[in-house]
Amino acid sequence: MKRKRISSILVATDGSEYSDKAFDYACELSIMKNIPLKIINVVEEYATVGYSILRELKKSSKQILHEYKGKSESLYIQNVSTIHSVGNAAEEILKIANGKDVDTLVIGSKGKYGTSIDMLGGTSYKLVHYSKCTVTVVK
Amino acid sequence: MKRKRISSILVATDGSEYSDKAFDYACELSIMKNIPLKIINVVEEYATVGYSILRELKKSSKQILHEYKGKSESLYIQNVSTIHSVGNAAEEILKIANGKDVDTLVIGSKGKYGTSIDMLGGTSYKLVHYSKCTVTVVK
Repeated sequence: MKRKRISSILVATDGSEYSDKAFDYACELSIMKNIPLKIINVVEEYATVGYSILRELKKSSKQILHEYKGKSESLYIQNVSTIHSVGNAAEEILKIANGKDVDTLVIGSKGKYGTSIDMLGGTSYKLVHYSKCTVTVVK
Repeated sequence: MKRKRISSILVATDGSEYSDKAFDYACELSIMKNIPLKIINVVEEYATVGYSILRELKKSSKQILHEYKGKSESLYIQNVSTIHSVGNAAEEILKIANGKDVDTLVIGSKGKYGTSIDMLGGTSYKLVHYSKCTVTVVK
């Protein structure tokens, strides 16, 4: 039987409890076979947000990435990189997930603004549908 | 950091190329840390199908499970079990996935009857939304 090994993981984080769960799961996967881990955080760019608020959001995004990188290093994950993007969350994550370097995308079932108890959040929904690589939705 | 280990995998199979991919991925996960693997196949029960056809479908389902079990054993996966159900595919898979023994459900992006190129199949869609455990959609 032909085997297709899992060789790279991208985890999407937004600092919410859902993305914390996704991050923990992605770390477990990474640890199992020293699989390289990429961590992405996207600053959503809204037309109505002024420059000073956007600057604060970018600063917060970098802090989130720094914190998650620290967590993964505390688990002795050896190959960790971070990606900081600005734009539409689903689109930015898909740009990376659909690149040649990722074979598994790990996401929470919803993000910071998810409200419905059962259903997927809007960004998670788009990622599951439009990602070309395997997507793990952590509950 | 609290670690939540991946301790059991359920993979849904219907004999399609999509479920073959899901099965391969589930095997890779299982192999990484000797994680027990459950393989489920559901015979869809339609009111319009007569007894003899249903009997053939059940026979085919058991053959599919036997074949997948053989494949996993050829990869030296030690703890493999099979589940044969009759009913609505999503409902039957969710009964098992939402039980206490499963923490990751692995599925194809669509099944035998999936037609749209991009979108999830109907059963996959329901499983992603309504599973209480983590769902991996293999592309």
